[in-house]
Amino acid sequence: MKTKRVAFFLLASLLLSLGASAQRPDAGTQVVDSIEAQHQAYADVALQIWKFAETGYQEVKSSALLEARLAAAGFSVQKGVADIPTAFVASYGSGKPIIAFIGEYDALPGLSQEAVPERKPVMTGAPGHGCGHNLLGTAAMAAAVAVKDWLASDHRQGTVRYYGTPAEEGGEGKIYMVRAGLFRDVDVAVSWHPGDSNQASTGSNLANISAKFRFHGIAAHAAAAPDKGRSALDAVEAMDMMVNLMREHVPQETRIHYIISNGGAAPNVVPDFAEAYYIARHPDMQVLDGIWQRITDAAKGAALGTSTTMDMEILGGDYNVLPNSHLSGLQNKNLQRLGGLKYTNEERAFAEALQKTMLGPVRPLGSEEKIQPQSSSITPASTDLGDVSWNVPTVGLTTATWVPGTSAHTWQATACGGMTIGIKGMMLAAKTMALTGVDLFSDPSNIQKARAEFEQRKGNVTYKPVIGDRKPPLDYRKQ
Amino acid sequence: MKTKRVAFFLLASLLLSLGASAQRPDAGTQVVDSIEAQHQAYADVALQIWKFAETGYQEVKSSALLEARLAAAGFSVQKGVADIPTAFVASYGSGKPIIAFIGEYDALPGLSQEAVPERKPVMTGAPGHGCGHNLLGTAAMAAAVAVKDWLASDHRQGTVRYYGTPAEEGGEGKIYMVRAGLFRDVDVAVSWHPGDSNQASTGSNLANISAKFRFHGIAAHAAAAPDKGRSALDAVEAMDMMVNLMREHVPQETRIHYIISNGGAAPNVVPDFAEAYYIARHPDMQVLDGIWQRITDAAKGAALGTSTTMDMEILGGDYNVLPNSHLSGLQNKNLQRLGGLKYTNEERAFAEALQKTMLGPVRPLGSEEKIQPQSSSITPASTDLGDVSWNVPTVGLTTATWVPGTSAHTWQATACGGMTIGIKGMMLAAKTMALTGVDLFSDPSNIQKARAEFEQRKGNVTYKPVIGDRKPPLDYRKQ
Amino acid sequence: MKTKRVAFFLLASLLLSLGASAQRPDAGTQVVDSIEAQHQAYADVALQIWKFAETGYQEVKSSALLEARLAAAGFSVQKGVADIPTAFVASYGSGKPIIAFIGEYDALPGLSQEAVPERKPVMTGAPGHGCGHNLLGTAAMAAAVAVKDWLASDHRQGTVRYYGTPAEEGGEGKIYMVRAGLFRDVDVAVSWHPGDSNQASTGSNLANISAKFRFHGIAAHAAAAPDKGRSALDAVEAMDMMVNLMREHVPQETRIHYIISNGGAAPNVVPDFAEAYYIARHPDMQVLDGIWQRITDAAKGAALGTSTTMDMEILGGDYNVLPNSHLSGLQNKNLQRLGGLKYTNEERAFAEALQKTMLGPVRPLGSEEKIQPQSSSITPASTDLGDVSWNVPTVGLTTATWVPGTSAHTWQATACGGMTIGIKGMMLAAKTMALTGVDLFSDPSNIQKARAEFEQRKGNVTYKPVIGDRKPPLDYRKQ
Amino acid sequence: MKTKRVAFFLLASLLLSLGASAQRPDAGTQVVDSIEAQHQAYADVALQIWKFAETGYQEVKSSALLEARLAAAGFSVQKGVADIPTAFVASYGSGKPIIAFIGEYDALPGLSQEAVPERKPVMTGAPGHGCGHNLLGTAAMAAAVAVKDWLASDHRQGTVRYYGTPAEEGGEGKIYMVRAGLFRDVDVAVSWHPGDSNQASTGSNLANISAKFRFHGIAAHAAAAPDKGRSALDAVEAMDMMVNLMREHVPQETRIHYIISNGGAAPNVVPDFAEAYYIARHPDMQVLDGIWQRITDAAKGAALGTSTTMDMEILGGDYNVLPNSHLSGLQNKNLQRLGGLKYTNEERAFAEALQKTMLGPVRPLGSEEKIQPQSSSITPASTDLGDVSWNVPTVGLTTATWVPGTSAHTWQATACGGMTIGIKGMMLAAKTMALTGVDLFSDPSNIQKARAEFEQRKGNVTYKPVIGDRKPPLDYRKQ
Repeated sequence: MKTKRVAFFLLASLLLSLGASAQRPDAGTQVVDSIEAQHQAYADVALQIWKFAETGYQEVKSSALLEARLAAAGFSVQKGVADIPTAFVASYGSGKPIIAFIGEYDALPGLSQEAVPERKPVMTGAPGHGCGHNLLGTAAMAAAVAVKDWLASDHRQGTVRYYGTPAEEGGEGKIYMVRAGLFRDVDVAVSWHPGDSNQASTGSNLANISAKFRFHGIAAHAAAAPDKGRSALDAVEAMDMMVNLMREHVPQETRIHYIISNGGAAPNVVPDFAEAYYIARHPDMQVLDGIWQRITDAAKGAALGTSTTMDMEILGGDYNVLPNSHLSGLQNKNLQRLGGLKYTNEERAFAEALQKTMLGPVRPLGSEEKIQPQSSSITPASTDLGDVSWNVPTVGLTTATWVPGTSAHTWQATACGGMTIGIKGMMLAAKTMALTGVDLFSDPSNIQKARAEFEQRKGNVTYKPVIGDRKPPLDYRKQ
Repeated sequence: MKTKRVAFFLLASLLLSLGASAQRPDAGTQVVDSIEAQHQAYADVALQIWKFAETGYQEVKSSALLEARLAAAGFSVQKGVADIPTAFVASYGSGKPIIAFIGEYDALPGLSQEAVPERKPVMTGAPGHGCGHNLLGTAAMAAAVAVKDWLASDHRQGTVRYYGTPAEEGGEGKIYMVRAGLFRDVDVAVSWHPGDSNQASTGSNLANISAKFRFHGIAAHAAAAPDKGRSALDAVEAMDMMVNLMREHVPQETRIHYIISNGGAAPNVVPDFAEAYYIARHPDMQVLDGIWQRITDAAKGAALGTSTTMDMEILGGDYNVLPNSHLSGLQNKNLQRLGGLKYTNEERAFAEALQKTMLGPVRPLGSEEKIQPQSSSITPASTDLGDVSWNVPTVGLTTATWVPGTSAHTWQATACGGMTIGIKGMMLAAKTMALTGVDLFSDPSNIQKARAEFEQRKGNVTYKPVIGDRKPPLDYRKQ
Repeated sequence: MKTKRVAFFLLASLLLSLGASAQRPDAGTQVVDSIEAQHQAYADVALQIWKFAETGYQEVKSSALLEARLAAAGFSVQKGVADIPTAFVASYGSGKPIIAFIGEYDALPGLSQEAVPERKPVMTGAPGHGCGHNLLGTAAMAAAVAVKDWLASDHRQGTVRYYGTPAEEGGEGKIYMVRAGLFRDVDVAVSWHPGDSNQASTGSNLANISAKFRFHGIAAHAAAAPDKGRSALDAVEAMDMMVNLMREHVPQETRIHYIISNGGAAPNVVPDFAEAYYIARHPDMQVLDGIWQRITDAAKGAALGTSTTMDMEILGGDYNVLPNSHLSGLQNKNLQRLGGLKYTNEERAFAEALQKTMLGPVRPLGSEEKIQPQSSSITPASTDLGDVSWNVPTVGLTTATWVPGTSAHTWQATACGGMTIGIKGMMLAAKTMALTGVDLFSDPSNIQKARAEFEQRKGNVTYKPVIGDRKPPLDYRKQ
Repeated sequence: MKTKRVAFFLLASLLLSLGASAQRPDAGTQVVDSIEAQHQAYADVALQIWKFAETGYQEVKSSALLEARLAAAGFSVQKGVADIPTAFVASYGSGKPIIAFIGEYDALPGLSQEAVPERKPVMTGAPGHGCGHNLLGTAAMAAAVAVKDWLASDHRQGTVRYYGTPAEEGGEGKIYMVRAGLFRDVDVAVSWHPGDSNQASTGSNLANISAKFRFHGIAAHAAAAPDKGRSALDAVEAMDMMVNLMREHVPQETRIHYIISNGGAAPNVVPDFAEAYYIARHPDMQVLDGIWQRITDAAKGAALGTSTTMDMEILGGDYNVLPNSHLSGLQNKNLQRLGGLKYTNEERAFAEALQKTMLGPVRPLGSEEKIQPQSSSITPASTDLGDVSWNVPTVGLTTATWVPGTSAHTWQATACGGMTIGIKGMMLAAKTMALTGVDLFSDPSNIQKARAEFEQRKGNVTYKPVIGDRKPPLDYRKQ
């Protein structure tokens, strides 16, 4: 059966390419042109979501807009997947291969900003797209639609999917979607992220685990009967101290950080409740698991040593991204084919003004025109895409949606994402991913190689989401 | 309605004083009878304030009611003293001696409770008179008025004052009034406090100092650049640790307690701000001063050792009460003369029901009928009366306004203060203090002895309010 | 006046003894006189042991000397009891009651000192009798012999015992003797201790427990592979920190102190071994047990939180002394009968010279002539007599063997114990205890009352030695 | 006997150099052959020093032997330089360039071991050459002599020096020699170190600073008057804690490690003295300086916060090695020319037996035959050669003197250094360095390029020895 299908697929490819080469532009040109033809339409979608600026799990209007556009483009849309109202999967075609484009669309609290090169919130304290997810979700849609159109026009077999993944910023929507099995049959996941340069990296990032450690003691009047009390704050400080001692004895790439999210109610009462909020990170989830066990032991030891009790609530945990050199190679090839960005005079003036608001030496202007060489460095950040990448061969990409030198999670990033500079970067990403999509559908060996590398890198690790059976924290941005 | 009741009250007073002058009973009998004659009127005032249940510096209606009654009784009232709207001094007479009766009338947050022997808030979360200050302020007024009436009828020289002192619970109104010089010419201050037994103690309590230690560091992304950050929370924990080490090296009666009132904003950011809220106590303010210096050094050392900066805001500080055995002897004598309280059947049923809500072995029912022997023990609590006592010979008193076994700052205390059990205790206190007032005006040697003992106990200590030039924290209960 | 009084006393004594000898002097006079008759002999024994100056469990010559004298006086001596070569029990008589006199004879390291009022070691660094146990052991022997002689001359039934208890200073010889059952049949234990005043106290002292907490980690090169190491020193510091946090939450009379007896071998190696040496104390062993449990939990919590392991070695533990007011009353009566000490001119000069070497305000000269009133205060020290007192009704006594103002464990104490001042105090103690012995043998109600009080004070506590099944640490002073 | 051997050695040298000049091989071949001709003589020297096994600053016989050999070879020897009896400089020739060969010869405590592949100390607890410095000093001498012979035979200008640098293991002899100006006029310093592979690295290592922090408090009886004491151990623990907090906020390559070298004398006394012994390291001394300042601030903050005082004694501090790629390139070229080592059957059997005593996966046998590619990694160790390298262009080298898999500072390393395997590696190092010496004297551009790179790398850093004006710690290994 399998052999027959492959044979058919090869034959079909051959015929198609023969036919294509005769009168039709090559598939790559076709998808790139089809995206460019929708430049204004996609810009409108991105700017609309930029204005919605909805935070994690509250992306009602943003997800509805994307769903509507995908439906209009011929996708069938399954809404509210994985018990998350703003998560969805849009699908076109049937059978294998199944290629997924990953979309995000949540904004960040407090980063409201007009599209001007000076600090000026649209509404003080309101959310803003400081991580460029309005561009992220739109480019992924553009790529999916372009590949779908090409598939359709070419009568090719296979499935194109768009995954609407909410709450990347701390809500970890993708992990709940992975847990729900939504990625089970996917062959390759194609994704990207806004940035301040153009690059198809083969590197990775940090796995992380976050949790609240809650300690329970016995209240007592701190002046009259402190000996009758058992301080939960003592436990928090003892845990912290043991973790600080531990810093010497973990690999140096480890990161452990905490706040005391509840340090007692009133100084004249021995606190019967106190809470520490921890995040730990390491480039390798397997190593991090061992470190996390020791952090948990520090919490247990602190409870034991202070006559208190402890319970831990895991808030989340992202796997590190499992890189895929073969897939990155495709993205890099396609990015090179398309080249960097060219600012207009107005954009350059905007960029120069914006750079003046940044501290320290920054990436120079002009670098947006170039494609950075591939790199395998570790980014000190975490993303729920990591969990996708341990289940499906996954590839990323960065384009210069932000003026060189711009950091993520800044008002500067919000500003760029609301004007033409952001849109240009978004269009480059959409086209690059569409080309990669074509590569994957056109040449089955790409998928085979990506899968083989995936299996080799994954080794004998059994993926197990850190979140366990926790429900999606749909309210984590409310309050 | 109100006007009518006042008119009746005035008439009754008139009749009583006429009757009194007719047969000329001894001064003690006269003041006791005059108070008892107003039983219902004073009960009404106390219950009115109980219903107002206004917290510190918000006692607008409570202070206005007391001011009005004192004015109606012939006192001249100076309102809004010491830059505090709800502080006042009511005065009658002229020249020496000057005897002060001390009134309080602030309620406590969260202790709203109906006058029933089971937990039942009038309004959930609302304030309530859990420390009996509705009784406190009213009894002091009753004593002041009775002594004033006697002075007037006897044409004696001297001045009776009533000090309306707000915000005893954490706001330390008296200290600002002391600082403003309002007690400068007073010869003796007579005070009392609600309790669950009848006693004229010669003991003392704990001086205290409270402050917030605020640390300032440098924020940085905790995963990407923790080495660029300087954690203010590190400083708080380092300070706490040094204070915990210090516990071994302070006199064992010392109390030091703290909460972490701000332990960082988000775990993925190195906290650039963190705050610890400390209270320290010791039976002797002079010793406490030295301990406080060391706590401050711990804060400075923590800032130095964590590359952060620190500033401290003193929130308050009460002197320990300087006891006066001579004055306590007078109160004890007068308390013995009057004897304890007698519950009705209904009151006893209430008391029995209330005791069932208390944990552990408690003072037995029936003890409200007795007068406890004098004691010189140290109460592990603090009061702004302490500052008065280092400026003026001061005497206290406790009566059983609460069912035996009741602790201060409980709903049980609120309940008792809103019904006849509280009123009975209040009347006993008013009469005892009035008798002491008569003793002081009648026999100048009492004042001389009290002053001599005061000077001897005070020694060469120069009183200096801990609050320095801080303004009254009029908003400390708002929020 | 004074001289007259003494003269009268002597005359009275004379008359009394004359009268007594006529018809058999009273028993008290008999034992007092028999001790005084041996003044020089007992002084020789005490000074001999003073010169031996043997430390805990090394008291070979000292114990042999006492054994020889007791044997010579007619006692049967059982040597090397409780597996301790220098422990012994000397016994005379048979049957009930059984009265025990408690002797000690160990010296202290480093306190070698000639019997002169300026610092001058016999041999620098050598041991010396800085706690007066040369006097302690001799006086107890004198009392035992005198009571035995009286029993014998009077043909009374009963048993007199002398307990030779070594290593009171840290070796806790008595506890091993108690554990061996040697006190099981004793009715009353009579003891005393050298001091700088004369007093029969009804107070108590502090129970204590001491132990070493040993932590085991994993060594690693601290520069090359600190993440491979698990620091045992981390565990010690974590334990210490949790204990310091605990200080706020134990009764204020508690004492917890520690050193880090092993803090790692070399800074460039992650320590795989570290050790903390703890002592905890409280006036009540039952309370201390609970606190010790929490200290142990802190050690366990520290091991858990630092990925190390822990083992604890209990080094010792003294019960607090269970006082016996009835027995103290007898001692007090007898001490009053005998009166204080009278210095010669030479002794006074010595005392004055010695006081000049002391800091701060000290007990005045002349106080040695007085008997201090009984007191029930808590002495902040520990003794293995505590364990005896929970098994047998026990009584203590202090006499002024040291110049007023002298502290225990000082060269000044050693100096006094080697000359007539120490001997005078010793003789007073011997006579007082002998009189108490006579009281106990003469009047059975004394023993009954002592026993009844003992049972009442002990309550339902089951005595269990802290040392468990540990062997006597015979080498603790070697090294 | 010794004299005869020396005479023979001199004669042999003479004959060889005569022979050499006859046929005039290339300079490289000449120096390599001249070293090989002395194989047994150099082996004898190395084994002699191996047997001396003298620790730092105690290398009296070892330095005397090397001095004698260098004098015999025609060098003029200046003994006892820099106020260090076992430091010396041997010099031959005059004028520029001046090329220095660096020798070390101190052993390590406790690593005594026979030259057998199982643990067997020559004398238990005695020192041993666990870091191969017997080979180090001998190879440098062989290179110096060979280059000198070639210079002499070629009548070239320039100076060859041998620096006898004692106490590399913790005594930092070179730094005192640098401070004394002994390297001021040197053009290039050529050095090497024993290892388990052959490599001419361009990497660096860790700068370090070590010191003792001594805290002084106030002693007090820990049970009777803990409030009178100020614990120096508290200060040590507070310092440690603040340093542990600091770990999060230093670059991740930083290493900070400590022991508590004095943690108090007795638990019942509040410690008035305690001491922490710290080492800190970082790849860059300039960064380390800033970190050290913060560690010192933690110590000061701890003293302030615990009412104690602190003094710090700097024990030492090595600069990181400033690499020189040009010079490493020469060493690499010469190492490649000579090739790796070939074991005999007996050596291979020894190596196999030795590898069986090692844990974990180790470098495979056979790797000694290869030359490792150059690498720029950071070795997590420190050496006083670092200070030389900031004053003079300096180059290192590693050869496989130890069986692959052997770590420094082990008995296995001692064993290898006492038999033919160590000697073979030593000979390879001697020849490589001699070839490099020839390169430097032959082609002035090598020195110019090395200098230029040195200046560029050094930048505007002003070298300042960490030790300040501290005297050489000549007794640091006594005790």
